[in-house]
Amino acid sequence: MGFKIVGVIGSSKADPGILALAEEVGSEIAKRGAAVVCGGLGGVMEAVCRGARKEGGLTIGIIPSDNRDDANPYVQIPIVTGMGMGRNVMLVKTADVVIAVGGEYGTLSEIAHALNLGKTVIGLRTWKLERAHTKPIPKLIEVDTPKEAVELAINTISAKR
Amino acid sequence: MGFKIVGVIGSSKADPGILALAEEVGSEIAKRGAAVVCGGLGGVMEAVCRGARKEGGLTIGIIPSDNRDDANPYVQIPIVTGMGMGRNVMLVKTADVVIAVGGEYGTLSEIAHALNLGKTVIGLRTWKLERAHTKPIPKLIEVDTPKEAVELAINTISAKR
Amino acid sequence: MGFKIVGVIGSSKADPGILALAEEVGSEIAKRGAAVVCGGLGGVMEAVCRGARKEGGLTIGIIPSDNRDDANPYVQIPIVTGMGMGRNVMLVKTADVVIAVGGEYGTLSEIAHALNLGKTVIGLRTWKLERAHTKPIPKLIEVDTPKEAVELAINTISAKR
Amino acid sequence: MGFKIVGVIGSSKADPGILALAEEVGSEIAKRGAAVVCGGLGGVMEAVCRGARKEGGLTIGIIPSDNRDDANPYVQIPIVTGMGMGRNVMLVKTADVVIAVGGEYGTLSEIAHALNLGKTVIGLRTWKLERAHTKPIPKLIEVDTPKEAVELAINTISAKR
Repeated sequence: MGFKIVGVIGSSKADPGILALAEEVGSEIAKRGAAVVCGGLGGVMEAVCRGARKEGGLTIGIIPSDNRDDANPYVQIPIVTGMGMGRNVMLVKTADVVIAVGGEYGTLSEIAHALNLGKTVIGLRTWKLERAHTKPIPKLIEVDTPKEAVELAINTISAKR
Repeated sequence: MGFKIVGVIGSSKADPGILALAEEVGSEIAKRGAAVVCGGLGGVMEAVCRGARKEGGLTIGIIPSDNRDDANPYVQIPIVTGMGMGRNVMLVKTADVVIAVGGEYGTLSEIAHALNLGKTVIGLRTWKLERAHTKPIPKLIEVDTPKEAVELAINTISAKR
Repeated sequence: MGFKIVGVIGSSKADPGILALAEEVGSEIAKRGAAVVCGGLGGVMEAVCRGARKEGGLTIGIIPSDNRDDANPYVQIPIVTGMGMGRNVMLVKTADVVIAVGGEYGTLSEIAHALNLGKTVIGLRTWKLERAHTKPIPKLIEVDTPKEAVELAINTISAKR
Repeated sequence: MGFKIVGVIGSSKADPGILALAEEVGSEIAKRGAAVVCGGLGGVMEAVCRGARKEGGLTIGIIPSDNRDDANPYVQIPIVTGMGMGRNVMLVKTADVVIAVGGEYGTLSEIAHALNLGKTVIGLRTWKLERAHTKPIPKLIEVDTPKEAVELAINTISAKR
């Protein structure tokens, strides 16, 4: 069956409030026995891995460069893609469900790819989606706390499998 | 030097109003001697290629599947990636500038990738960008007509090269 | 630091002798505390994962399709790329060192990518490399047994880190 | 219908004899009205584009980096992938048929990918394929001159379409 895998997306630069949320998301995921997959670099990616490792969780980083040493020190399994931003698609495909914490353009691309794939995307202080034309398709689910985000994520995976 | 290349992004399903805009965008690009790059499939992608071909323009389609026959009939140069949505990144990297016409999640991912790369993105009835947190980074430029969109696109390329 | 990761490459169809070699390679890797990364499908890929799991080892499968259920049942961490054969490059980039067991064209592409990256490639009954022109660059190291292959692989990683 | 597209693969470093062959291959392709697709960089890739442009042919370069300026000056349509060696797969998928001229490991990976896809691969002073085990699958077709290579390539495309 393999692990339940929660994707956590967010920027390599983020303010302390966002980083604290990300770390708590990582811890909550690990407490529930699921693995974290993220982009493997700094900022939110490092915070979520640090949080997961504190609780003994498994951490996977999908690295954009050719260099595994670009992974943050809390990544246990660096997947080295050499595909730059092209790796964003693989991160969301690998995740059973996605949690966005803050985020800039890279995160927005991942939210879009995940929704395009029909995956559940849960947001903590992240992008708001709105279209200028016709019928609304935006479906990001906004929550207020890391615990809420992770509970919803895990329940979603359990319902699917 | 190669051709000036304008990326045009939009959905494979779109209402007639959006398709008419896309076709006019294609024609305007071709009239100015630039090439079109798009995702190569139907809907907005087909409309923009049809418009460009009417004016004798060059059309490039970055195909997600392994099958060049998935390209719409107005694509002259199908680039066969076999990378699914992973091809979206390549489309925006290949374009000098990007015009979004309508669009669903795939288009949103391309807007995000393009802005992430620092490229100019011009929108016609497309997504509105807004973040839930801190300082605003959204930079999509909204315009009202295909002609405006293409003039801005070509001027942007001329200024860069 | 993360795990030592040994890439094992080979075909989805192979005769029983090749499959037995692959399974033993997997077991030998796991006994030495390293993780296996492979293409995640059947044949040699399944045999090496089965061998690793028998010894309690960690198994990572880089899946070509969009569907994690395409992973063989011994893959614990399926990385879902949706990039078809494009995933071969990522497999060898992720591996510290590569062992080829038998193999058809896909395996040959991975041997080539790995040597192109300067990685050590160890072969068990796999392709022979020869060029028709000028100075010879072929560098595949042929060995006779799974144990030899894995010992050389682990020593190579230890020397590098 | 689009252009007939001949893929030409070879190394960025090559001796003058190999480069002369590549340039002639490019000219022969252009004389027959087909387009060239190649990796877009120097060496064999530049020689084949130069040969094609001399005869007014169309040249497409699938660039590994994020920078279109890495394309050689004879590339008219640079496709910017940012996927490093991951772009090799796309080159062969985009080509109707492949001609290898000399070549190192990158070329070997492309030969392998092309044969894996069931494409015809024609070789001029390139790799020899041989397997250490069981039934032989190698299928590279060796020829002696650029003209022979291109005639066979064009005939192959005509027979397929």
